[in-house]
Amino acid sequence: MSLPRIAVDAMGGDEGVRVMIEGAALARRRHDRFKFLLVGDETRIKAALEDHPNMRGASEILHAPEIVSGDEKPTQALRRARKTSMGMAIDAVKRGEAGAAVSAGNTGALMAMAKLSLRTMPGIDRPALAALMPTLGETDMVMLDLGANTECDARNLVQFAVMGAAYARIASNLAEPRVRLLNIGTEETKGTGALREASDTLRAAQNQLAFSFGGFTEADKINRGETDVVVTDGFSGNIALKAVEGAARFVTDLLKEAFQSSLRSKIGFLVSRPATELLKHHLDPNNHNGAVFLGLNGVVVKSHGSANAKGVANAVAVAARLLEEDLIERITADLAESGLAAKTRSRRTSVGAEEA
Amino acid sequence: MSLPRIAVDAMGGDEGVRVMIEGAALARRRHDRFKFLLVGDETRIKAALEDHPNMRGASEILHAPEIVSGDEKPTQALRRARKTSMGMAIDAVKRGEAGAAVSAGNTGALMAMAKLSLRTMPGIDRPALAALMPTLGETDMVMLDLGANTECDARNLVQFAVMGAAYARIASNLAEPRVRLLNIGTEETKGTGALREASDTLRAAQNQLAFSFGGFTEADKINRGETDVVVTDGFSGNIALKAVEGAARFVTDLLKEAFQSSLRSKIGFLVSRPATELLKHHLDPNNHNGAVFLGLNGVVVKSHGSANAKGVANAVAVAARLLEEDLIERITADLAESGLAAKTRSRRTSVGAEEA
Repeated sequence: MSLPRIAVDAMGGDEGVRVMIEGAALARRRHDRFKFLLVGDETRIKAALEDHPNMRGASEILHAPEIVSGDEKPTQALRRARKTSMGMAIDAVKRGEAGAAVSAGNTGALMAMAKLSLRTMPGIDRPALAALMPTLGETDMVMLDLGANTECDARNLVQFAVMGAAYARIASNLAEPRVRLLNIGTEETKGTGALREASDTLRAAQNQLAFSFGGFTEADKINRGETDVVVTDGFSGNIALKAVEGAARFVTDLLKEAFQSSLRSKIGFLVSRPATELLKHHLDPNNHNGAVFLGLNGVVVKSHGSANAKGVANAVAVAARLLEEDLIERITADLAESGLAAKTRSRRTSVGAEEA
Repeated sequence: MSLPRIAVDAMGGDEGVRVMIEGAALARRRHDRFKFLLVGDETRIKAALEDHPNMRGASEILHAPEIVSGDEKPTQALRRARKTSMGMAIDAVKRGEAGAAVSAGNTGALMAMAKLSLRTMPGIDRPALAALMPTLGETDMVMLDLGANTECDARNLVQFAVMGAAYARIASNLAEPRVRLLNIGTEETKGTGALREASDTLRAAQNQLAFSFGGFTEADKINRGETDVVVTDGFSGNIALKAVEGAARFVTDLLKEAFQSSLRSKIGFLVSRPATELLKHHLDPNNHNGAVFLGLNGVVVKSHGSANAKGVANAVAVAARLLEEDLIERITADLAESGLAAKTRSRRTSVGAEEA
């Protein structure tokens, strides 16, 4: 099967068209089977394409007259979704004209549009936002939900575990990912009722799961390489993700300051540059760019607003990999085997409720 | 007024008596007005005191026959509180034989015993655990609650704001601390209902507050030096605190690895050692040791279980400072002025409910 093309919202992100097209072109230089539907202002996309001859024959332009702005309320953006580059990229997935959509635009709007257009897949009550994070182990870890659902019940968390494990199996090539629930202690009595119930459900289903469930983990352990999938509600997940980002920047800022504090340390910095470059590479968010909305009838990848071309190329590669490995089919199969599918078929999720 | 003595649970912590006594002695070397009530096994305390002649005349021993273990359930520990070094240190505060208690033992048990013995102060519904964290700014910031209350309503959060600000005014010597609520976005529509309601209440009371309320902040901004007090429920606060600790260790581990990756980087490390030592100093949790239970009729300070003598000395200094500046009186006055005191007088808090 040839790879379905990827719809790219060319207008989203802090840097706009130039970086999005450059990112797509970079992805195609690495994987020449990639094909694109570039959605946005036709004139500007054409201009940006002139720098990238390798995109010729591999991309089609879909003109979109409007753009979703970064600070627009999701409910507002939804009303004019059909005219925006973001909404049109998602609709292309719905109509089968593309296999996946990638956008660096407004996260809340993207989530609302994706939910409304693609709907939640059978067996899943609520979609979740998942991302890869670096660890001290051999592979990255998947964390979800990162902000799609401010509050979650036990069933949501259980479904997130199944979806996150399916993602980790594809993204990190793991046969049996180690899944844990994020909590404030590892004892069974810790945390909220929803967490304890989710833990009980997963333990009871242990033999039917396509992953190994290891109970609770704490936020200081998530990057030790002991867990492949960290499951949490969207509020705590967002807090944990941002706390990690902030702390990593804090330490590197302190380090920079320390290295500039004396002539000796400046010299030391120059000598040890290869070491600090290695660190910089490891911590560069562009190397882990591409968060995925799991649980929809279609693949939607969120690229970070400040991602550079390398970051966009990574987000595109994530989308392609999920298509090639058929993420949605895998989640469906895992849900069926585990007996943990939602009883209702694709409950209509209340769009924008979280963001409004 | 001379400083009331400080009750030290000499038996808690990973290292036990030796480190606790060494920490107290170190605190006294720095501040010779400090006096101590050392609670625990008399024989072992006496033996440990032999190394510290400066404690002579400044400390009394209160023999306690039992010890609370690190993994003991709070409800279990409560039953034999009166015989344990932890429970007896707290009771000494209750009876006025000491001004404050410091323990490095089991956090859940300490919280349960402190609540039951000292009770919640008038105007406060629930006590909270607060700690200082390093920032890129000139002063540390206070974060609370760090795990005393898994779930919180708007009124709890508002009271935490008042208590945290009083703590920051003392600990960081700030006339008007900048207080923010931890959320997953800064827009007024973000987060849970409790957060939005707390924000509305604090905004409405703005003119009566002994601090400046700045709305919401996100977890990646907390250490930038823009906020002096970060208010959150105990679940999110615990997640954020541990995520920061874990990420800081993650980056320093990567750095260590990077510096050992080649001969050149090893040399660079030696040359730049003063710089990395500075970083190490900044990140050493012992320099920020001493979390405080705010909202009780007495000062109780939790020292980290793995703290060294320097860490214990810092925890003791925190307790002394809160006594000298009369934290509880300050919270009472701020609550009265703000009009945000709880209507009920010292509701009896359900002890151990969170931990059981």
